[in-house]
Amino acid sequence: MLEISERGKQMPPSPIRKLVPYAETAKKKGIKVYHLNIGQPDIETPPAILDAVRDADIRVLEYSHSAGNESYRKKLVQYYKTVGIDITKDQILITTGGSEAILFGFLTCLNPRDEVIIPEPFYANYNGFAVAAGVKVVPITSNIENGFALPPISDFETVITANTKAIVVCNPNNPTGYLYSRQEMEALKTICLKHNLYLFSDEAYREFAYSGEYVSALHLTGMDDNVVLMDTVSKRYSACGARLGAFVTRNKAVYDAAMKFAQARLSPPGLAQIMGEAAVDLPASYFDAPKAEYIARRNLLVKRLNNMPGVFCPNPGGAFYAMAQLPIDDSDKFCQWLLEEFSVNNRTVMLAPATGFYGTPGLGKKEVRLAYVLNLKDLDDAMDCLEKALQVYPGRTEVKSVKNEEAIL
Amino acid sequence: MLEISERGKQMPPSPIRKLVPYAETAKKKGIKVYHLNIGQPDIETPPAILDAVRDADIRVLEYSHSAGNESYRKKLVQYYKTVGIDITKDQILITTGGSEAILFGFLTCLNPRDEVIIPEPFYANYNGFAVAAGVKVVPITSNIENGFALPPISDFETVITANTKAIVVCNPNNPTGYLYSRQEMEALKTICLKHNLYLFSDEAYREFAYSGEYVSALHLTGMDDNVVLMDTVSKRYSACGARLGAFVTRNKAVYDAAMKFAQARLSPPGLAQIMGEAAVDLPASYFDAPKAEYIARRNLLVKRLNNMPGVFCPNPGGAFYAMAQLPIDDSDKFCQWLLEEFSVNNRTVMLAPATGFYGTPGLGKKEVRLAYVLNLKDLDDAMDCLEKALQVYPGRTEVKSVKNEEAIL
Repeated sequence: MLEISERGKQMPPSPIRKLVPYAETAKKKGIKVYHLNIGQPDIETPPAILDAVRDADIRVLEYSHSAGNESYRKKLVQYYKTVGIDITKDQILITTGGSEAILFGFLTCLNPRDEVIIPEPFYANYNGFAVAAGVKVVPITSNIENGFALPPISDFETVITANTKAIVVCNPNNPTGYLYSRQEMEALKTICLKHNLYLFSDEAYREFAYSGEYVSALHLTGMDDNVVLMDTVSKRYSACGARLGAFVTRNKAVYDAAMKFAQARLSPPGLAQIMGEAAVDLPASYFDAPKAEYIARRNLLVKRLNNMPGVFCPNPGGAFYAMAQLPIDDSDKFCQWLLEEFSVNNRTVMLAPATGFYGTPGLGKKEVRLAYVLNLKDLDDAMDCLEKALQVYPGRTEVKSVKNEEAIL
Repeated sequence: MLEISERGKQMPPSPIRKLVPYAETAKKKGIKVYHLNIGQPDIETPPAILDAVRDADIRVLEYSHSAGNESYRKKLVQYYKTVGIDITKDQILITTGGSEAILFGFLTCLNPRDEVIIPEPFYANYNGFAVAAGVKVVPITSNIENGFALPPISDFETVITANTKAIVVCNPNNPTGYLYSRQEMEALKTICLKHNLYLFSDEAYREFAYSGEYVSALHLTGMDDNVVLMDTVSKRYSACGARLGAFVTRNKAVYDAAMKFAQARLSPPGLAQIMGEAAVDLPASYFDAPKAEYIARRNLLVKRLNNMPGVFCPNPGGAFYAMAQLPIDDSDKFCQWLLEEFSVNNRTVMLAPATGFYGTPGLGKKEVRLAYVLNLKDLDDAMDCLEKALQVYPGRTEVKSVKNEEAIL
């Protein structure tokens, strides 16, 4: 009997996509489904960067340099300068999406059975890359009560073992929308230096920081060897399908090792690199409109949610996600019920159960993640659906309110 | 002290790219370098498939389905039919190049420390993916004397252990150009069924089979669960930079597990999928011209090589590579010397030392791989360079000729 591998068995299916068949069934019944479940922005991809591909003079679409086209890496040096990050073209390795940057980081820095600490709830696909690399994810819990701030350093200290090699942070955070403060980033630096840990910093949502200062891990001084930045153009330019990211580090040994993994897969996508290069030439004002739009959506979403009885949603400082606590028995059941059994005026809403974002079993049962990737009108309609649904959901429970007025807009 | 991982240390640098700095130095001195070292074809990417991208109406470049766009997978079902492979859209998983298909195969089917048998010389990047997956490559040696035919089954039997889980073949072969016969493919089937092994079949060069019948691993009957096909559009449509491949299997458990790895990285490149879809609509006659061109080049190359004293080059049945035995002390030294110290009329040639394609240390020292990816005129000029170089190379040795008249064109 042929067997699949142990990691093939352990590999978690996408918690975000597991509800898709229920959504498809609902749509076949003629129900309109508002998708707040995935981080696929509806913002237009800048036409100028698609035009760059259209206008490119290509006779042979050749492999690029394994680290990505030199011309693109030089452009990225300019881009990073605009966000206060000093880096050279030889410290940037172009990847196939942020995903590949994460995989390269794990493969390059961590041995099988090494441990990586990640504040939960966290981006679920870190689990997948950890399984691929044979690495153990050790979650420490952040809490909705304080808006998912960085857990206290003592929580990190408690779980650090001889096998701990790295901390992963996503800033601004997916799924919580939390924006780490300078103080929190400095706390991460202190613990990384003290325990000799890598700091893997996923900054996919850099451009979408709304309240307070954005602090990159590469802004921190005195820890050049520790930081690996995992980046992507997916959200920055609403170009998720391009599959274009970057692995950025000042640690030469790490860069050189990651480069060997990059050489094995030959090169990152060629057409996407043309887009990426053109994107750096967009005017600085380009981000004003999407950012204003996301802020308006966030404000609407958070207000609507907190006005629903028994619901609590801290105000996220960045990205385009919010986590809400709902008066429900089980978020997986609730999200499935929304698609299978509920509709109002032939409409319903699709949410991501928070359970998939926690590493600790049992957590997230009363929480959902909402991606505000729809326009204000649709978002408002989706909130109407959710409000009605919570009134009639059979598994409704009265939760003790955790509302913290300061956390609310 | 921060350390990189063991696999980061073990990861081999690209043997093909390690000579690049010497080539760059040569070019700076004004020397023209004929690149026969890499499989980057000079054949034009079909304008129609680039036009498909130019004409695509894209408002938001979204993530595609993790298995690739359904429309593209349906098209590929048609394509595979034209090459005699019956497969459904749900047995095709679109990947980022053939590279990712190989990685998914290793991660999905093999545990760390499992062994995979590969006839050597083999595509060097298999080593890289094996290190990434913690898998051990066990080479069995094929020989230039018989044109690198499949080693006898007894050679496989000798190295099979309880840890052996798979065989990898590349057909037509990179780096040897060898095209496996039906009899050889059937022999692989017998041994896979007997020992319960996966057959990973890399068929990147399918369209370029010149002598004899092309037999896909998916043409073999009675072993549906064993076969994983690793495919790519890179060479088929001269679109290496697109990074578009496919993982194809009738084994549902393997497919489902690979799909979880695919979900973790979200989706394959979006613009490339538009190209791939358009490519299936190219007329069947599209391949006539590149194939005729490659055959003409092969004929020239093999004839020129075998006319050089002390050189032997078997006639490859497919792909666009040839392996030649040269009267030299060490192929690594020779290839470096060609770039560093040799030139004739301000020209030299860049070749790939065969040592990088062998898993057994010490093999390949008298062999080089030549990729016939230049037009006939340049190829002829490159052969002039090589002929002169062999006359004056200080490390020239007289080798016992292994010429086999039947193997020569």
